[in-house]
Amino acid sequence: MKALLVAAHGSRRTASNDEVIKLCERIQKEKGDEEFGVVMAGFLELAQPSIPEGIEECIRLGADQVVVLPYFLSAGRHVSEDIPAEVEKARTAHPHVSIQLAPYLGSAPGVSRLLVDLAEGVEKNGHSTE
Amino acid sequence: MKALLVAAHGSRRTASNDEVIKLCERIQKEKGDEEFGVVMAGFLELAQPSIPEGIEECIRLGADQVVVLPYFLSAGRHVSEDIPAEVEKARTAHPHVSIQLAPYLGSAPGVSRLLVDLAEGVEKNGHSTE
Repeated sequence: MKALLVAAHGSRRTASNDEVIKLCERIQKEKGDEEFGVVMAGFLELAQPSIPEGIEECIRLGADQVVVLPYFLSAGRHVSEDIPAEVEKARTAHPHVSIQLAPYLGSAPGVSRLLVDLAEGVEKNGHSTE
Repeated sequence: MKALLVAAHGSRRTASNDEVIKLCERIQKEKGDEEFGVVMAGFLELAQPSIPEGIEECIRLGADQVVVLPYFLSAGRHVSEDIPAEVEKARTAHPHVSIQLAPYLGSAPGVSRLLVDLAEGVEKNGHSTE
């Protein structure tokens, strides 16, 4: 079974962490068991589960493949060093599980399309979020 | 002419700010003059141009409509208070320009699809970013 771990920074604001958790629930609901049997959040700091705890939980739920996807917009130290280090540790701890690191969200080519769609929506509907 | 201002947090890392600037250039290139005549970045802190400076520049380049889109993943204080306050100030300074606030990136329904595509790409290609 394949699992997706959305690796977010984590925040002191519970609402921000809940946004990531809800996003994972939405992915799981939309995709059903079609692609990923488990979709969950893992946090680098300030919130639980941590990334290693999230990977552990995916494996406990039966995953033999875990894709870790950094939920970040830019490639700072967290994306280039901290998350890869967590993934590497998890690989050492679970040599029989395939643990892969996906590109971070901000690097997705589709981000530009998403921004234009959001901006056009506002402009066409003639109202802002205020 | 319509302009899109991508409002990012700003970072001490030049590379992170450059990522946002390059994203804006990509949107401008992909969309041409079709939708937005100007696409540029504005930063809340730590980088230039600031959001008000970015809006000014859009207007100087001929925009009579500016859509400000928060390039953020969660709805913290920056999204709920700081950026709306900047937009409000710009509206007062430019009463004849339509300045609209778009939803923040993380609220886009398409984010879940983007994450799944990124994760599936890794899984299908059988390689990670490492």
